[in-house]
Amino acid sequence: MNPSVKTKRRIHQYRKGQMTCKTDEVVEEFPLTVLVNGEEFVTLVCSPDHLKELVIGFLASEGVIRFEKEIKRFTIDESMGFAYVDLHHTTHFQSSDFTKRVIGSCCGKGRHFYFLQDVKTAKTAIDRISISAETCIYLMKCLQEESQLFQHTGGVHNAGLCDTEKLFITRTDIGRHNALDKIYGYCLLHKIPLRDKILVFSGRISSEVLLKAAKLGVSIVISKSAPTELALKMAEELNITTVGFVRGESFNIYTHHQRITE
Amino acid sequence: MNPSVKTKRRIHQYRKGQMTCKTDEVVEEFPLTVLVNGEEFVTLVCSPDHLKELVIGFLASEGVIRFEKEIKRFTIDESMGFAYVDLHHTTHFQSSDFTKRVIGSCCGKGRHFYFLQDVKTAKTAIDRISISAETCIYLMKCLQEESQLFQHTGGVHNAGLCDTEKLFITRTDIGRHNALDKIYGYCLLHKIPLRDKILVFSGRISSEVLLKAAKLGVSIVISKSAPTELALKMAEELNITTVGFVRGESFNIYTHHQRITE
Repeated sequence: MNPSVKTKRRIHQYRKGQMTCKTDEVVEEFPLTVLVNGEEFVTLVCSPDHLKELVIGFLASEGVIRFEKEIKRFTIDESMGFAYVDLHHTTHFQSSDFTKRVIGSCCGKGRHFYFLQDVKTAKTAIDRISISAETCIYLMKCLQEESQLFQHTGGVHNAGLCDTEKLFITRTDIGRHNALDKIYGYCLLHKIPLRDKILVFSGRISSEVLLKAAKLGVSIVISKSAPTELALKMAEELNITTVGFVRGESFNIYTHHQRITE
Repeated sequence: MNPSVKTKRRIHQYRKGQMTCKTDEVVEEFPLTVLVNGEEFVTLVCSPDHLKELVIGFLASEGVIRFEKEIKRFTIDESMGFAYVDLHHTTHFQSSDFTKRVIGSCCGKGRHFYFLQDVKTAKTAIDRISISAETCIYLMKCLQEESQLFQHTGGVHNAGLCDTEKLFITRTDIGRHNALDKIYGYCLLHKIPLRDKILVFSGRISSEVLLKAAKLGVSIVISKSAPTELALKMAEELNITTVGFVRGESFNIYTHHQRITE
Protein backbone atom coordinates (compact mmCIF):
# COMPACT_ATOMS: atom_id res chain seq x y z
CA MET A 1 0.00 0.00 0.00
CA ASN A 2 1.20 3.49 -0.79
CA PRO A 3 2.09 5.84 2.04
CA SER A 4 -0.66 8.42 2.44
CA VAL A 5 -0.55 11.61 0.36
CA LYS A 6 -1.85 13.66 3.29
CA THR A 7 -2.00 13.46 7.05
CA LYS A 8 -3.83 14.99 9.99
CA ARG A 9 -2.13 17.40 12.36
CA ARG A 10 -3.09 19.50 15.40
CA ILE A 11 -2.78 23.21 14.64
CA HIS A 12 -3.52 26.55 16.29
CA GLN A 13 -6.01 28.45 14.19
CA TYR A 14 -6.49 32.23 14.45
CA ARG A 15 -9.92 33.47 13.32
CA LYS A 16 -11.73 36.68 14.21
CA GLY A 17 -9.29 37.58 16.96
CA GLN A 18 -9.50 34.15 18.63
CA MET A 19 -6.93 31.36 18.78
CA THR A 20 -8.35 27.83 18.86
CA CYS A 21 -6.85 24.37 18.62
CA LYS A 22 -8.11 22.10 15.83
CA THR A 23 -7.17 19.21 13.57
CA ASP A 24 -6.27 20.02 9.98
CA GLU A 25 -5.00 18.11 6.95
CA VAL A 26 -1.47 18.66 5.64
CA VAL A 27 -0.04 17.32 2.40
CA GLU A 28 2.86 14.85 2.62
CA GLU A 29 6.25 15.28 0.94
CA PHE A 30 7.94 11.94 0.35
CA PRO A 31 11.63 11.53 -0.57
CA LEU A 32 12.09 8.64 -3.01
CA THR A 33 15.68 7.75 -3.89
CA VAL A 34 16.03 5.95 -7.22
CA LEU A 35 18.92 3.51 -7.76
CA VAL A 36 19.52 2.44 -11.35
CA ASN A 37 21.63 -0.72 -11.76
CA GLY A 38 22.69 -0.30 -8.14
CA GLU A 39 23.87 3.27 -8.54
CA GLU A 40 22.14 6.23 -6.80
CA PHE A 41 20.60 8.26 -9.61
CA VAL A 42 18.26 10.82 -8.07
CA THR A 43 16.10 11.62 -5.05
CA LEU A 44 12.62 12.73 -6.05
CA VAL A 45 10.60 14.59 -3.43
CA CYS A 46 7.01 13.73 -4.27
CA SER A 47 3.46 12.98 -3.20
CA PRO A 48 3.62 9.26 -2.43
CA ASP A 49 1.16 7.73 -4.88
CA HIS A 50 1.70 6.13 -8.29
CA LEU A 51 5.39 5.76 -7.48
CA LYS A 52 6.17 3.21 -10.19
CA GLU A 53 4.66 5.50 -12.83
CA LEU A 54 6.65 8.39 -11.39
CA VAL A 55 9.99 6.58 -11.53
CA ILE A 56 9.42 5.18 -15.03
CA GLY A 57 8.21 8.54 -16.32
CA PHE A 58 11.19 10.30 -14.78
CA LEU A 59 13.72 7.83 -16.21
CA ALA A 60 12.13 8.16 -19.65
CA SER A 61 12.12 11.95 -19.51
CA GLU A 62 15.82 11.88 -18.56
CA GLY A 63 16.56 9.59 -21.51
CA VAL A 64 17.63 6.61 -19.34
CA ILE A 65 14.93 4.37 -20.84
CA ARG A 66 12.59 4.62 -23.77
CA PHE A 67 10.26 1.65 -23.17
CA GLU A 68 9.11 -0.32 -20.14
CA LYS A 69 10.61 -3.50 -21.63
CA GLU A 70 14.12 -2.16 -20.94
CA ILE A 71 13.45 -2.73 -17.23
CA LYS A 72 14.57 -6.14 -15.94
CA ARG A 73 13.46 -5.71 -12.34
CA PHE A 74 11.62 -2.98 -10.47
CA THR A 75 11.08 -2.91 -6.72
CA ILE A 76 10.04 -0.17 -4.33
CA ASP A 77 10.76 -0.15 -0.60
CA GLU A 78 8.12 2.29 0.52
CA SER A 79 8.97 2.17 4.20
CA MET A 80 12.48 3.49 3.48
CA GLY A 81 11.68 5.44 0.32
CA PHE A 82 13.90 3.64 -2.18
CA ALA A 83 13.18 2.44 -5.73
CA TYR A 84 15.53 -0.15 -7.25
CA VAL A 85 15.54 -0.29 -11.03
CA ASP A 86 17.64 -2.89 -12.85
CA LEU A 87 17.88 -2.45 -16.59
CA HIS A 88 18.78 -4.92 -19.34
CA HIS A 89 21.43 -2.50 -20.54
CA THR A 90 24.33 -1.11 -18.55
CA THR A 91 24.41 2.55 -17.55
CA HIS A 92 27.26 4.96 -17.10
CA PHE A 93 25.86 8.17 -15.72
CA GLN A 94 27.98 11.14 -16.37
CA SER A 95 26.52 13.57 -13.87
CA SER A 96 27.55 16.45 -16.10
CA ASP A 97 25.07 15.21 -18.73
CA PHE A 98 22.29 16.21 -16.37
CA THR A 99 23.70 19.46 -15.03
CA LYS A 100 25.91 20.92 -17.76
CA ARG A 101 24.36 23.78 -19.53
CA VAL A 102 24.12 23.78 -23.29
CA ILE A 103 24.04 27.03 -25.21
CA GLY A 104 22.74 26.82 -28.73
CA SER A 105 24.56 28.24 -31.69
CA CYS A 106 21.99 31.01 -31.78
CA CYS A 107 23.72 33.02 -29.05
CA GLY A 108 22.83 36.65 -29.00
CA LYS A 109 19.26 37.50 -29.82
CA GLY A 110 17.69 34.10 -29.36
CA ARG A 111 19.87 32.59 -26.64
CA HIS A 112 17.88 29.56 -25.57
CA PHE A 113 18.85 27.19 -22.89
CA TYR A 114 18.77 23.47 -22.36
CA PHE A 115 20.64 20.92 -20.34
CA LEU A 116 22.42 18.31 -22.46
CA GLN A 117 19.94 15.60 -21.52
CA ASP A 118 17.04 17.78 -22.65
CA VAL A 119 18.55 18.24 -26.09
CA LYS A 120 18.56 14.45 -26.46
CA THR A 121 14.98 13.84 -25.33
CA ALA A 122 12.82 16.87 -26.13
CA LYS A 123 10.92 16.34 -29.38
CA THR A 124 9.50 18.83 -31.82
CA ALA A 125 5.72 18.36 -31.97
CA ILE A 126 4.59 17.12 -35.37
CA ASP A 127 0.91 16.52 -34.77
CA ARG A 128 -1.71 18.62 -36.51
CA ILE A 129 -4.60 18.14 -34.07
CA SER A 130 -6.80 21.08 -33.20
CA ILE A 131 -9.53 21.79 -30.67
CA SER A 132 -12.19 24.47 -30.30
CA ALA A 133 -12.03 27.23 -27.70
CA GLU A 134 -14.97 25.58 -25.92
CA THR A 135 -13.12 22.26 -25.68
CA CYS A 136 -10.11 24.06 -24.25
CA ILE A 137 -12.28 25.51 -21.46
CA TYR A 138 -14.11 22.21 -20.98
CA LEU A 139 -10.89 20.19 -20.52
CA MET A 140 -9.66 22.58 -17.81
CA LYS A 141 -13.03 22.28 -16.04
CA CYS A 142 -12.72 18.49 -16.11
CA LEU A 143 -9.23 18.71 -14.56
CA GLN A 144 -10.48 20.95 -11.78
CA GLU A 145 -13.40 18.64 -10.99
CA GLU A 146 -11.05 15.64 -10.88
CA SER A 147 -8.61 17.40 -8.57
CA GLN A 148 -10.09 16.91 -5.16
CA LEU A 149 -6.85 16.83 -3.15
CA PHE A 150 -6.20 20.52 -3.65
CA GLN A 151 -9.47 21.54 -2.04
CA HIS A 152 -8.46 19.81 1.18
CA THR A 153 -4.82 20.65 1.70
CA GLY A 154 -3.67 23.28 -0.81
CA GLY A 155 -0.39 23.41 -2.58
CA VAL A 156 -0.44 20.51 -5.04
CA HIS A 157 -0.20 20.52 -8.82
CA ASN A 158 -2.68 18.70 -11.02
CA ALA A 159 -1.96 17.41 -14.50
CA GLY A 160 -4.26 15.66 -16.92
CA LEU A 161 -3.93 13.96 -20.27
CA CYS A 162 -6.68 14.42 -22.87
CA ASP A 163 -7.47 13.62 -26.43
CA THR A 164 -9.40 16.17 -28.50
CA GLU A 165 -12.65 15.22 -26.76
CA LYS A 166 -12.08 14.23 -23.14
CA LEU A 167 -9.77 14.06 -20.15
CA PHE A 168 -8.82 10.46 -19.42
CA ILE A 169 -6.13 10.45 -16.75
CA THR A 170 -5.17 12.88 -13.98
CA ARG A 171 -2.25 12.83 -11.59
CA THR A 172 -1.51 15.05 -8.60
CA ASP A 173 1.78 15.87 -6.90
CA ILE A 174 3.38 18.50 -4.69
CA GLY A 175 6.09 18.75 -7.39
CA ARG A 176 4.88 20.09 -10.70
CA HIS A 177 7.25 17.92 -12.74
CA ASN A 178 6.31 14.82 -10.80
CA ALA A 179 2.67 15.13 -11.86
CA LEU A 180 3.85 15.15 -15.48
CA ASP A 181 6.25 12.23 -14.94
CA LYS A 182 3.43 10.16 -13.40
CA ILE A 183 1.41 10.70 -16.55
CA TYR A 184 4.40 9.81 -18.74
CA GLY A 185 4.99 6.63 -16.72
CA TYR A 186 1.33 5.65 -16.96
CA CYS A 187 1.43 6.02 -20.74
CA LEU A 188 4.61 3.96 -21.06
CA LEU A 189 3.18 1.21 -18.83
CA HIS A 190 -0.07 1.12 -20.83
CA LYS A 191 1.53 1.74 -24.23
CA ILE A 192 -0.60 4.82 -24.87
CA PRO A 193 0.69 6.95 -27.75
CA LEU A 194 1.26 10.57 -26.77
CA ARG A 195 1.77 12.45 -30.02
CA ASP A 196 -1.95 13.15 -30.53
CA LYS A 197 -2.60 14.09 -26.91
CA ILE A 198 -3.15 17.31 -24.96
CA LEU A 199 -1.77 18.20 -21.55
CA VAL A 200 -3.85 20.22 -19.05
CA PHE A 201 -2.03 21.55 -16.04
CA SER A 202 -2.79 23.61 -12.95
CA GLY A 203 0.66 25.16 -12.57
CA ARG A 204 2.80 27.67 -14.38
CA ILE A 205 4.27 26.78 -17.78
CA SER A 206 7.96 27.14 -16.91
CA SER A 207 10.77 26.06 -19.22
CA GLU A 208 11.02 22.77 -17.32
CA VAL A 209 7.30 22.07 -17.71
CA LEU A 210 7.47 22.92 -21.40
CA LEU A 211 10.46 20.59 -21.87
CA LYS A 212 8.62 17.80 -20.04
CA ALA A 213 5.69 18.29 -22.42
CA ALA A 214 8.10 18.14 -25.37
CA LYS A 215 9.61 14.92 -23.99
CA LEU A 216 6.15 13.39 -23.73
CA GLY A 217 5.57 14.52 -27.30
CA VAL A 218 2.27 16.37 -26.82
CA SER A 219 1.48 19.29 -29.10
CA ILE A 220 -0.91 21.36 -26.92
CA VAL A 221 -0.31 22.49 -23.31
CA ILE A 222 -3.22 24.14 -21.48
CA SER A 223 -2.57 25.80 -18.11
CA LYS A 224 -4.58 27.63 -15.48
CA SER A 225 -1.53 29.79 -14.75
CA ALA A 226 1.00 32.02 -16.48
CA PRO A 227 3.77 30.91 -18.84
CA THR A 228 7.32 32.26 -18.75
CA GLU A 229 9.00 33.92 -21.73
CA LEU A 230 11.71 31.22 -21.90
CA ALA A 231 9.05 28.48 -22.02
CA LEU A 232 7.30 30.36 -24.83
CA LYS A 233 10.51 30.66 -26.85
CA MET A 234 11.02 26.92 -26.49
CA ALA A 235 7.35 26.30 -27.41
CA GLU A 236 7.82 28.34 -30.58
CA GLU A 237 10.87 26.27 -31.54
CA LEU A 238 9.34 22.92 -30.59
CA ASN A 239 6.05 23.64 -32.37
CA ILE A 240 3.94 23.37 -29.21
CA THR A 241 0.71 25.34 -28.70
CA THR A 242 0.63 27.01 -25.26
CA VAL A 243 -2.59 28.23 -23.66
CA GLY A 244 -2.47 30.00 -20.29
CA PHE A 245 -4.75 31.64 -17.72
CA VAL A 246 -7.69 29.36 -18.53
CA ARG A 247 -10.17 30.77 -16.04
CA GLY A 248 -13.94 30.72 -16.38
CA GLU A 249 -14.73 31.25 -20.06
CA SER A 250 -11.46 33.01 -20.94
CA PHE A 251 -7.87 32.14 -21.83
CA ASN A 252 -4.77 33.40 -23.64
CA ILE A 253 -2.98 31.64 -26.51
CA TYR A 254 0.75 32.37 -26.57
CA THR A 255 2.24 30.19 -29.31
CA HIS A 256 1.09 28.26 -32.40
CA HIS A 257 -2.48 29.48 -32.04
CA GLN A 258 -3.66 27.64 -35.17
CA ARG A 259 -4.44 24.53 -33.08
CA ILE A 260 -7.18 26.40 -31.15
CA THR A 261 -10.17 27.25 -33.33
CA GLU A 262 -12.76 29.89 -32.52
CA MET B 1 21.94 47.04 -16.17
CA ASN B 2 19.97 43.95 -15.31
CA PRO B 3 18.07 42.13 -18.03
CA SER B 4 14.36 42.81 -17.65
CA VAL B 5 12.29 40.61 -15.33
CA LYS B 6 9.35 40.75 -17.74
CA THR B 7 8.71 41.36 -21.38
CA LYS B 8 5.88 42.20 -23.75
CA ARG B 9 4.47 39.64 -26.16
CA ARG B 10 1.65 39.47 -28.74
CA ILE B 11 -1.00 36.95 -27.70
CA HIS B 12 -4.41 35.72 -28.83
CA GLN B 13 -6.93 36.39 -26.11
CA TYR B 14 -10.27 34.55 -25.90
CA ARG B 15 -13.00 36.45 -24.01
CA LYS B 16 -16.79 36.08 -24.22
CA GLY B 17 -16.63 33.87 -27.27
CA GLN B 18 -14.35 36.23 -29.19
CA MET B 19 -10.67 35.85 -30.12
CA THR B 20 -8.66 39.09 -30.26
CA CYS B 21 -5.01 39.91 -30.67
CA LYS B 22 -3.38 41.99 -27.95
CA THR B 23 -0.10 42.72 -26.20
CA ASP B 24 0.46 41.16 -22.78
CA GLU B 25 3.29 40.97 -20.26
CA VAL B 26 5.12 37.70 -19.62
CA VAL B 27 7.63 37.04 -16.87
CA GLU B 28 11.21 36.20 -17.90
CA GLU B 29 13.10 33.06 -16.87
CA PHE B 30 16.85 33.64 -16.96
CA PRO B 31 19.46 30.85 -16.81
CA LEU B 32 22.50 31.95 -14.80
CA THR B 33 25.41 29.52 -14.72
CA VAL B 34 27.71 29.98 -11.73
CA LEU B 35 31.39 29.06 -11.98
CA VAL B 36 33.28 28.86 -8.71
CA ASN B 37 37.09 29.02 -9.02
CA GLY B 38 36.66 28.26 -12.73
CA GLU B 39 34.54 25.16 -12.21
CA GLU B 40 30.87 24.98 -13.30
CA PHE B 41 28.92 24.72 -10.05
CA VAL B 42 25.22 25.22 -10.85
CA THR B 43 22.78 26.76 -13.29
CA LEU B 44 20.12 28.79 -11.53
CA VAL B 45 16.97 29.57 -13.51
CA CYS B 46 15.78 32.85 -12.08
CA SER B 47 14.17 36.25 -12.53
CA PRO B 48 17.08 38.42 -13.67
CA ASP B 49 17.38 41.02 -10.95
CA HIS B 50 19.63 41.22 -7.88
CA LEU B 51 21.87 38.58 -9.44
CA LYS B 52 24.87 39.19 -7.18
CA GLU B 53 22.68 38.77 -4.09
CA LEU B 54 21.23 35.61 -5.59
CA VAL B 55 24.60 34.01 -6.27
CA ILE B 56 26.07 34.95 -2.89
CA GLY B 57 22.94 33.78 -1.06
CA PHE B 58 22.93 30.51 -2.97
CA LEU B 59 26.62 29.82 -2.32
CA ALA B 60 26.11 30.55 1.38
CA SER B 61 23.06 28.32 1.64
CA GLU B 62 25.04 25.50 -0.03
CA GLY B 63 27.87 25.99 2.47
CA VAL B 64 30.42 27.09 -0.15
CA ILE B 65 30.97 30.45 1.61
CA ARG B 66 29.99 31.89 4.97
CA PHE B 67 30.94 35.55 4.54
CA GLU B 68 31.28 37.94 1.62
CA LYS B 69 34.98 38.47 2.45
CA GLU B 70 35.76 34.94 1.24
CA ILE B 71 35.11 36.19 -2.30
CA LYS B 72 38.22 37.44 -4.11
CA ARG B 73 36.55 38.42 -7.36
CA PHE B 74 32.96 38.48 -8.57
CA THR B 75 31.89 39.24 -12.12
CA ILE B 76 28.64 38.69 -13.97
CA ASP B 77 28.31 38.47 -17.74
CA GLU B 78 24.63 39.25 -18.08
CA SER B 79 24.52 39.01 -21.85
CA MET B 80 25.59 35.35 -21.70
CA GLY B 81 24.18 34.50 -18.27
CA PHE B 82 27.38 33.55 -16.47
CA ALA B 83 28.60 34.47 -12.98
CA TYR B 84 32.30 33.98 -12.18
CA VAL B 85 33.15 33.69 -8.52
CA ASP B 86 36.77 33.38 -7.39
CA LEU B 87 37.28 32.55 -3.74
CA HIS B 88 40.29 33.02 -1.49
CA HIS B 89 40.10 29.35 -0.59
CA THR B 90 40.23 26.40 -2.96
CA THR B 91 37.16 24.26 -3.59
CA HIS B 92 36.78 20.60 -4.35
CA PHE B 93 33.15 19.95 -5.12
CA GLN B 94 32.10 16.43 -4.58
CA SER B 95 28.86 16.39 -6.52
CA SER B 96 27.58 13.64 -4.23
CA ASP B 97 27.66 16.10 -1.30
CA PHE B 98 24.83 17.96 -2.97
CA THR B 99 22.78 15.04 -4.22
CA LYS B 100 23.39 12.13 -1.84
CA ARG B 101 20.55 11.52 0.49
CA VAL B 102 21.16 11.33 4.21
CA ILE B 103 18.84 9.31 6.38
CA GLY B 104 18.95 10.17 10.05
CA SER B 105 19.43 7.61 12.75
CA CYS B 106 15.78 8.03 13.66
CA CYS B 107 14.58 5.73 10.87
CA GLY B 108 11.14 4.32 11.39
CA LYS B 109 8.60 6.64 12.91
CA GLY B 110 10.42 9.91 12.38
CA ARG B 111 12.30 9.26 9.14
CA HIS B 112 13.43 12.72 8.17
CA PHE B 113 15.37 13.59 5.14
CA TYR B 114 18.19 15.91 4.26
CA PHE B 115 20.91 16.11 1.67
CA LEU B 116 24.40 16.02 3.13
CA GLN B 117 24.99 19.70 2.43
CA ASP B 118 21.81 20.62 4.31
CA VAL B 119 22.97 18.80 7.43
CA LYS B 120 26.08 20.98 7.39
CA THR B 121 24.34 24.33 6.92
CA ALA B 122 20.82 24.19 8.44
CA LYS B 123 20.81 25.73 11.93
CA THR B 124 18.47 25.15 14.84
CA ALA B 125 16.73 28.43 15.66
CA ILE B 126 17.75 29.74 19.09
CA ASP B 127 16.03 33.10 19.13
CA ARG B 128 13.17 33.76 21.54
CA ILE B 129 11.45 36.61 19.68
CA SER B 130 7.68 36.69 19.55
CA ILE B 131 5.08 38.72 17.67
CA SER B 132 1.36 39.29 18.10
CA ALA B 133 -1.27 37.78 15.81
CA GLU B 134 -1.98 41.30 14.49
CA THR B 135 1.68 41.81 13.56
CA CYS B 136 1.68 38.49 11.75
CA ILE B 137 -1.26 39.62 9.60
CA TYR B 138 0.25 43.10 9.15
CA LEU B 139 3.60 41.76 7.89
CA MET B 140 1.86 39.63 5.24
CA LYS B 141 -0.17 42.67 4.13
CA CYS B 142 3.06 44.65 3.78
CA LEU B 143 4.56 41.90 1.61
CA GLN B 144 1.53 41.85 -0.66
CA GLU B 145 1.55 45.61 -1.07
CA GLU B 146 5.27 45.53 -1.92
CA SER B 147 4.80 42.77 -4.49
CA GLN B 148 3.68 44.55 -7.59
CA LEU B 149 5.20 42.22 -10.18
CA PHE B 150 2.74 39.46 -9.45
CA GLN B 151 -0.25 41.60 -10.28
CA HIS B 152 1.03 42.16 -13.79
CA THR B 153 2.35 38.81 -14.93
CA GLY B 154 1.43 36.08 -12.44
CA GLY B 155 3.54 33.20 -11.36
CA VAL B 156 6.31 34.73 -9.22
CA HIS B 157 7.14 34.18 -5.57
CA ASN B 158 7.62 37.02 -3.12
CA ALA B 159 9.73 36.85 0.00
CA GLY B 160 10.29 39.49 2.63
CA LEU B 161 12.49 39.90 5.68
CA CYS B 162 11.06 41.56 8.78
CA ASP B 163 11.95 42.34 12.35
CA THR B 164 9.20 42.17 14.98
CA GLU B 165 7.78 45.49 13.81
CA LYS B 166 8.20 45.96 10.09
CA LEU B 167 9.06 44.50 6.71
CA PHE B 168 12.35 45.96 5.45
CA ILE B 169 13.36 44.08 2.33
CA THR B 170 11.43 42.16 -0.34
CA ARG B 171 12.66 40.08 -3.24
CA THR B 172 10.73 38.47 -6.07
CA ASP B 173 11.60 35.52 -8.29
CA ILE B 174 9.99 32.90 -10.49
CA GLY B 175 11.84 30.32 -8.35
CA ARG B 176 10.73 30.18 -4.75
CA HIS B 177 14.21 29.36 -3.45
CA ASN B 178 15.78 32.14 -5.47
CA ALA B 179 13.67 34.75 -3.70
CA LEU B 180 15.03 33.45 -0.39
CA ASP B 181 18.62 33.32 -1.66
CA LYS B 182 18.37 36.93 -2.84
CA ILE B 183 17.40 37.93 0.69
CA TYR B 184 20.23 35.84 2.15
CA GLY B 185 22.73 37.44 -0.24
CA TYR B 186 21.47 40.93 0.60
CA CYS B 187 21.97 40.27 4.31
CA LEU B 188 25.48 38.92 3.79
CA LEU B 189 26.44 41.90 1.62
CA HIS B 190 25.05 44.35 4.20
CA LYS B 191 26.13 42.37 7.28
CA ILE B 192 22.57 42.19 8.61
CA PRO B 193 22.16 39.62 11.38
CA LEU B 194 19.39 37.12 10.66
CA ARG B 195 18.80 35.27 13.92
CA ASP B 196 16.24 37.79 15.23
CA LYS B 197 14.42 38.12 11.91
CA ILE B 198 11.14 36.84 10.43
CA LEU B 199 10.57 35.55 6.92
CA VAL B 200 7.29 36.26 5.08
CA PHE B 201 6.68 34.30 1.92
CA SER B 202 4.00 33.99 -0.75
CA GLY B 203 4.65 30.35 -1.61
CA ARG B 204 4.21 26.97 -0.02
CA ILE B 205 6.42 26.00 2.93
CA SER B 206 8.06 22.91 1.40
CA SER B 207 10.98 21.08 3.02
CA GLU B 208 13.37 23.00 0.77
CA VAL B 209 11.90 26.36 1.80
CA LEU B 210 12.04 25.36 5.46
CA LEU B 211 15.67 24.31 5.10
CA LYS B 212 16.50 27.61 3.40
CA ALA B 213 14.91 29.42 6.34
CA ALA B 214 16.99 27.31 8.73
CA LYS B 215 20.14 28.13 6.77
CA LEU B 216 19.34 31.84 7.03
CA GLY B 217 18.79 31.28 10.75
CA VAL B 218 15.37 32.88 11.10
CA SER B 219 13.01 31.55 13.76
CA ILE B 220 9.58 32.44 12.32
CA VAL B 221 8.31 31.66 8.78
CA ILE B 222 4.98 33.20 7.72
CA SER B 223 3.38 32.02 4.48
CA LYS B 224 0.27 32.80 2.48
CA SER B 225 0.12 29.14 1.38
CA ALA B 226 0.11 25.63 2.82
CA PRO B 227 3.04 23.85 4.46
CA THR B 228 3.96 20.21 3.84
CA GLU B 229 4.15 17.60 6.56
CA LEU B 230 7.90 17.01 5.95
CA ALA B 231 8.60 20.75 6.31
CA LEU B 232 6.66 20.77 9.58
CA LYS B 233 8.63 17.83 10.97
CA MET B 234 11.84 19.68 10.13
CA ALA B 235 10.43 22.87 11.69
CA GLU B 236 9.69 20.98 14.89
CA GLU B 237 13.25 19.67 15.02
CA LEU B 238 14.88 22.97 14.05
CA ASN B 239 12.79 25.01 16.51
CA ILE B 240 11.17 27.16 13.81
CA THR B 241 7.66 28.63 14.12
CA THR B 242 5.63 28.03 10.95
CA VAL B 243 2.50 30.04 10.14
CA GLY B 244 0.48 29.23 7.01
CA PHE B 245 -2.60 30.34 5.10
CA VAL B 246 -2.30 33.96 6.23
CA ARG B 247 -5.32 35.34 4.41
CA GLY B 248 -7.35 38.36 5.48
CA GLU B 249 -7.50 38.34 9.28
CA SER B 250 -6.89 34.59 9.68
CA PHE B 251 -3.99 32.14 9.76
CA ASN B 252 -2.87 28.73 11.06
CA ILE B 253 0.11 28.07 13.32
CA TYR B 254 1.66 24.65 12.73
CA THR B 255 4.78 24.48 14.90
CA HIS B 256 6.27 26.23 17.97
CA HIS B 257 3.18 28.40 18.42
CA GLN B 258 4.60 30.11 21.53
CA ARG B 259 6.25 32.78 19.32
CA ILE B 260 2.82 34.08 18.15
CA THR B 261 0.87 35.75 20.93
CA GLU B 262 -2.87 36.34 20.93
